Amino acid sequence: SAIRLGMMPADGIGREVLPCAQRVLQNTPGAPKFEFLQLAAGFEHFQKTGSALPDETIRALKEECDGAMFGSVSSPSHKVEGYSSPIVRLRKELDLYANIRPVIGVRGTKDDEKWVDTVIVRENTECLYVKSETSESTPEGQVARAIRQISEKASTRIGRKAFEVALARQSMREKTGATTSGNAATAKVTVCHKSNVLSVTDGLFRTSVRAVYEKDARSAGGPGRYANVTMDEQLVDSMVYRLFREPHVFDVVVAPNLYGDIISDGAAALVGSLGVVASVNAGDTFFMGEPVHGSAPDIAGQNKANPIASIRSAALLLEYMGYPEPALKIYKAVDDVLREGKYLTPDLHGSATTTQCEEAILKALGA
Amino acid sequence: SAIRLGMMPADGIGREVLPCAQRVLQNTPGAPKFEFLQLAAGFEHFQKTGSALPDETIRALKEECDGAMFGSVSSPSHKVEGYSSPIVRLRKELDLYANIRPVIGVRGTKDDEKWVDTVIVRENTECLYVKSETSESTPEGQVARAIRQISEKASTRIGRKAFEVALARQSMREKTGATTSGNAATAKVTVCHKSNVLSVTDGLFRTSVRAVYEKDARSAGGPGRYANVTMDEQLVDSMVYRLFREPHVFDVVVAPNLYGDIISDGAAALVGSLGVVASVNAGDTFFMGEPVHGSAPDIAGQNKANPIASIRSAALLLEYMGYPEPALKIYKAVDDVLREGKYLTPDLHGSATTTQCEEAILKALGA
Ligand SMILES: CC(C)[C@H](C(=O)O)[C@@H](O)C(=O)O
Ligand SMILES: CC(C)[C@H](C(=O)O)[C@@H](O)C(=O)O
Repeated sequence: SAIRLGMMPADGIGREVLPCAQRVLQNTPGAPKFEFLQLAAGFEHFQKTGSALPDETIRALKEECDGAMFGSVSSPSHKVEGYSSPIVRLRKELDLYANIRPVIGVRGTKDDEKWVDTVIVRENTECLYVKSETSESTPEGQVARAIRQISEKASTRIGRKAFEVALARQSMREKTGATTSGNAATAKVTVCHKSNVLSVTDGLFRTSVRAVYEKDARSAGGPGRYANVTMDEQLVDSMVYRLFREPHVFDVVVAPNLYGDIISDGAAALVGSLGVVASVNAGDTFFMGEPVHGSAPDIAGQNKANPIASIRSAALLLEYMGYPEPALKIYKAVDDVLREGKYLTPDLHGSATTTQCEEAILKALGA
Repeated sequence: SAIRLGMMPADGIGREVLPCAQRVLQNTPGAPKFEFLQLAAGFEHFQKTGSALPDETIRALKEECDGAMFGSVSSPSHKVEGYSSPIVRLRKELDLYANIRPVIGVRGTKDDEKWVDTVIVRENTECLYVKSETSESTPEGQVARAIRQISEKASTRIGRKAFEVALARQSMREKTGATTSGNAATAKVTVCHKSNVLSVTDGLFRTSVRAVYEKDARSAGGPGRYANVTMDEQLVDSMVYRLFREPHVFDVVVAPNLYGDIISDGAAALVGSLGVVASVNAGDTFFMGEPVHGSAPDIAGQNKANPIASIRSAALLLEYMGYPEPALKIYKAVDDVLREGKYLTPDLHGSATTTQCEEAILKALGA
């Protein structure tokens, strides 16, 4: 029977790029059959109905869907009573505890000068995203406080996920014969933190991730599962610095929620545009594809948005749902279009429309 | 009488580069007379004595010094009982509430392709740096929490500082006739925050900084003080992205403590090396120069460290203490040496020693 995917285009360009991803999924040779459920979410939906994430959307995702795709959400920059980011809520409600963001340059494009081939594994449920904030009036004005929560449980499971991603990348490299320059040719996990200042919270993140590796190394009977993976660490400030100076040294980077948010946007600058960077929000059994870019209100509705981030996110979703072959076909079709350079959208300094870029990818797919 | 500066080389390369800054201060034509007090601080001092920042250092700074210079501190990545970062403490003890970090490329060097001429004004006393952390044992393991504090008072004064820096830059540009490409030719303050997630804390930061500008605009009797400064804002994730894509659009960026830490390291990557980025920790009447780089244990003691960040920090200190002319001479001497490219340290792909680089700067100064 068909695989059912919940589709939440949400706001802005999400509404233009998510349908592209849907058509690519429908037309990829060798992909399973899909059924798509259009589900409501987003700031505009909130403005119309008072809810940014209707109960019905959550119910349908939990009870009727095998996976999901999310577009992008517009964020009010001021506090709006009753509004809470639907994407942050979805990650928690569905316990999609890992946000996996590959940032990979394409050889043969003008952006391959600094070689980037890294996956950011972002913890997706806690840190400052627990959104526990208070404010009090004092004689000196308002004083606001937010809680940043880091737990051993969440840090351990994200650590494990990072090592698994490193293994999967390693075996993919061996299978496809792909080689990368720099250290990234060896499987490595870099733990990103700021434990020199946050010795308790980031200290716990750091030791929990390290413990995954160290326990594995101590496990009885021969070399551990991660014996061929190395591990190092980087303070978040110097992580951003080194990411720009020598991106090729990073393979898998694991980070608490907010650092992961920041460094993945930073890494995106190295591959030409946020418009090409994909992610999958991963739980143990449920997955949700999501482009890393925002809703880009300035270009929404103009057929200018880059559909590649969404299309790659659909492929990531396929890969995580257990269909690597059609996923690889999509990755390759996208790379071909990027390399050819004829149907690039304005963010990549091209003049193609969203539609033309999508069509070029469908054509490269042999669809 | 002479100006008394407290010198805290602290750890690692701080001990090599701070003496360079001292010699430059002593030999800059037109600079005031200085007296230097060597003061203890740092992780090594902690290991020897149990204190990373002796009371005597704080007393001497408060009672005997007109200003200070700090080198760099080694950070244990694990929690060390009784240790607390001396630089974080100094900023608070002396109420140096603004960390001002100019990141400025030098025309005519190979790093001027992406034009960067920005000043990051980092709040220096609160955010996650209040270091209020707890941890509890639960059936599911440790759960750690940190408080992130943002107050109206601290946000307002850092906002005001940012607008003042923008004005000062504008008048300096007019005086020296220097022009920069891009929007940075107009005075602008960009407020960096993440209020789409942290609507209370970052919401307060955002509205407090904006209020400085808006109140000024409403102030009676003609145009306000900041009438020629524009203001915009940027979410911290997209800030890092745009910093790399189009750094020239940023003039002054004002940010809460941790975001400021991260984006200034990011910006440093755009000017060739962290080894050239200076900062001054500024209160209302006391100032402390500090290179942005760390203690670099891997190269410490080898006469390889870049002294430029410290030398520029000394010039910044002079500028903030009210001596712009000798400060400008130092900036110019450093720019000359960077442009000539003959005496660059290894971080800038040169082969000069710390000493040779310092000597070249002293020579360019006509010292
Ligand atoms: C829209 C926002 C809440 C979100 C985040 O901060 O996680 C976005 O920046 C992302 O990276 O998915
Ligand atoms: C050493 C560390 C505590 C410090 C900070 O985080 O402020 C450093 O990174 C800096 O930027 O001055």
